[in-house]
Amino acid sequence: MKNQNLALALSNAIEQQQFDKAINQIKALRPIDIADLLALIKPVFACQLLERLPNRSKVFSYLETDIQVVLAQTFPRDSLARIVGEMPADERTDLYKSLQQDQRDALLPALAHAKREDIRLLSAYEEGTAGALMTSDYAALGIEMNVAEALDDLRREAPDAETIYHAYVIDDQRKLLGVVSLRALILATPERLISDIMMNSPVFCHVKDDQEDVAKMVARYDLIALPVIDDSGALVGIVTHDDAMDVASAEATDDFHKSGGVSTMVGRLKDVSITLLYRKRVFWLVFLVFGNLLSGFGISHFEEVIAANLVLVFFLPLLVDSGGNAGSQSATLMVRALATGDVVMRDWFSLLGRESVVALLLGASMAVAISIIGYFRGDAILSLVLALSMMSVVMIGCMIGMSLPFVLSKFGFDPATASAPLITSVCDASGVLIYLFIASKFLVV
Amino acid sequence: MKNQNLALALSNAIEQQQFDKAINQIKALRPIDIADLLALIKPVFACQLLERLPNRSKVFSYLETDIQVVLAQTFPRDSLARIVGEMPADERTDLYKSLQQDQRDALLPALAHAKREDIRLLSAYEEGTAGALMTSDYAALGIEMNVAEALDDLRREAPDAETIYHAYVIDDQRKLLGVVSLRALILATPERLISDIMMNSPVFCHVKDDQEDVAKMVARYDLIALPVIDDSGALVGIVTHDDAMDVASAEATDDFHKSGGVSTMVGRLKDVSITLLYRKRVFWLVFLVFGNLLSGFGISHFEEVIAANLVLVFFLPLLVDSGGNAGSQSATLMVRALATGDVVMRDWFSLLGRESVVALLLGASMAVAISIIGYFRGDAILSLVLALSMMSVVMIGCMIGMSLPFVLSKFGFDPATASAPLITSVCDASGVLIYLFIASKFLVV
Repeated sequence: MKNQNLALALSNAIEQQQFDKAINQIKALRPIDIADLLALIKPVFACQLLERLPNRSKVFSYLETDIQVVLAQTFPRDSLARIVGEMPADERTDLYKSLQQDQRDALLPALAHAKREDIRLLSAYEEGTAGALMTSDYAALGIEMNVAEALDDLRREAPDAETIYHAYVIDDQRKLLGVVSLRALILATPERLISDIMMNSPVFCHVKDDQEDVAKMVARYDLIALPVIDDSGALVGIVTHDDAMDVASAEATDDFHKSGGVSTMVGRLKDVSITLLYRKRVFWLVFLVFGNLLSGFGISHFEEVIAANLVLVFFLPLLVDSGGNAGSQSATLMVRALATGDVVMRDWFSLLGRESVVALLLGASMAVAISIIGYFRGDAILSLVLALSMMSVVMIGCMIGMSLPFVLSKFGFDPATASAPLITSVCDASGVLIYLFIASKFLVV
Repeated sequence: MKNQNLALALSNAIEQQQFDKAINQIKALRPIDIADLLALIKPVFACQLLERLPNRSKVFSYLETDIQVVLAQTFPRDSLARIVGEMPADERTDLYKSLQQDQRDALLPALAHAKREDIRLLSAYEEGTAGALMTSDYAALGIEMNVAEALDDLRREAPDAETIYHAYVIDDQRKLLGVVSLRALILATPERLISDIMMNSPVFCHVKDDQEDVAKMVARYDLIALPVIDDSGALVGIVTHDDAMDVASAEATDDFHKSGGVSTMVGRLKDVSITLLYRKRVFWLVFLVFGNLLSGFGISHFEEVIAANLVLVFFLPLLVDSGGNAGSQSATLMVRALATGDVVMRDWFSLLGRESVVALLLGASMAVAISIIGYFRGDAILSLVLALSMMSVVMIGCMIGMSLPFVLSKFGFDPATASAPLITSVCDASGVLIYLFIASKFLVV
């Protein structure tokens, strides 16, 4: 609400050409908060205000890409070129990739040669890799420099570099030799050599590494930035801690959605279109309708025992759901542990052993619960059938839940595809068969 | 495997008192990698090696707390005091809180007064708050300083501060006035005043804020560290970006587990005990056994229509699962959107409107699928019953899935408690009733 009122006041001021008033209203705000406001006002107003903001490129960078594209169409060409020229290299490339071909053609000639070259290089990397995530705005130092020279160099690089708190030491071929922190630089005497105070063998990643692994490295080594090298070992960029944090959050969202049977979806739930939501959800739902037919066929196979003992139907949802629930738990634990790196493929066998003990305990607890209900609703034999079924269903459910993420991963799928709906359907089908099979052995037909 | 071999070589060297050889084997490794190795060797060996490492307190800080506690019992008292004294204040407090009372009593007198005071202050904050997450090792500057004085000050503070890249400007009462980056300091002329170059109105949080919100602020504003103030507005600590990233990951794991019906669990899946796993899972499973009884009662109410039309049982798992699956999708989308802050409580009504359109489309698609199967297995009337039931079941499932996280949140529960197992059980019970009710209206009894 507060934002909406502020946006309205901002619109009014801009409409009346009172730009000083408008700038006063927002000058205490952080760039991302200003960006949130600009997203609420007319594109033409947002452009007029942005042109007059000292930190315009920073604010512009925080806008969602689809809004950036709309504003890019609204800006006069020279304003657009100025703002885009000032943007961080990685954000600039992301915007460029989202523009139509004619917009790209109009923008490129207005940019300095180095920036055009940068866009060409950065946009060549595949989405989801370190290359597509990194920025080329890093601070680099020569190995032969001393501390005073290095500090001078960093002062020159500071306006363009995303961070100068870590500077990367390279040779003539831009090979990564070490990293030196600004902390070490300001503590050292001016005449000391960089090669003496730098940290050798720095942590780095390769330009083609998966962005999820890159984010994990940044988290593991508590880095401000992770250097990225190409096939020749040359430094080509850095991934900053804030971008790594965004990737970790996006990957967690993706896994979370998959666990609920929703396909990979980009964008905020509030903003995505209804047709996108439909498309991301319909596949699994219809697929599982056919999967659940298996349960139906299991049931028709045992139609006679059901007809003779209708009380079995009473316990049917309970039993099959319990297997699915236990299986969902196992799969959830496994999928997240695989995602965070707590568990790797070769742990599968030992985990399966532990899981079977847990499953036995869980199955026994639930068997006690259901056999009591069964006794009061039927007789001792029904009670026995239910207890045996519950034990088996929970055991099988847990084994399926624990194994499916590994199997999927083995065949090159994301383990998170082992969603609760998928596990539930698989466990249901096996649960129906187990339950009715045991019943057919003990009860009259 | 590689780690295990290295740990073996390390153990051998230490056993033979060849400490230089041992240190050589690990000197190229980063502190966290050394910590992973130390976790694999005998505690007494780990202690002997740690005492000889120059970065011992850093390595020690990266060990899991339970291993730290074991080593704390193994160290000679003066070695322990030295290492604990060198640890970052937040890590030191976490260790202290994990020690037995007699260990605490032995350790405290060996620490310097300021560090004892620090432990006392930091350990007073409740787990899960900014206070428990922050460190008191921050760099502070006086408002009256100039740039040269500030840089001298930072050089003095550098060995102890977790970061000197952001320094916090305070007055005599330690009230937070602004923040100045080391980047700005090295770019400014020596005689400029801090008050001229600092950023006023910095982002901050309160000592009692939830750690999840703190992590979100660090991510939103791309901060290296977030200052923490107490009730009086005085600066008491900072939360660093790497700790914020760890919190974000832990909170995502927690939500993920809850979504699968597993209660909050601390520790790595490989390491947690079987009884802990059992306890964290049994509650929901047994709870849902009783929840699923509702489905059973629904079925017994319609026993006659089932007895007369046994084909209904064939479609029972399919129909009720479809409602649960659609509901799980809705709940998953909603829970994650609430967790990332993409959606807030007041969006509920508009989201429910969108969801009903999506649910209508999904329900229609699935109704087509099931009515074809129904026609071939039964007749046109069965086909109609199934299509109507599917539409209703999916609609109701989606509404429950979308609303339950909000309702839980409203009553003070974590919205992630709306797990797939819970949603499935609730949707199953309503699905059974809807299906059999519709069937009883159209089919002969």
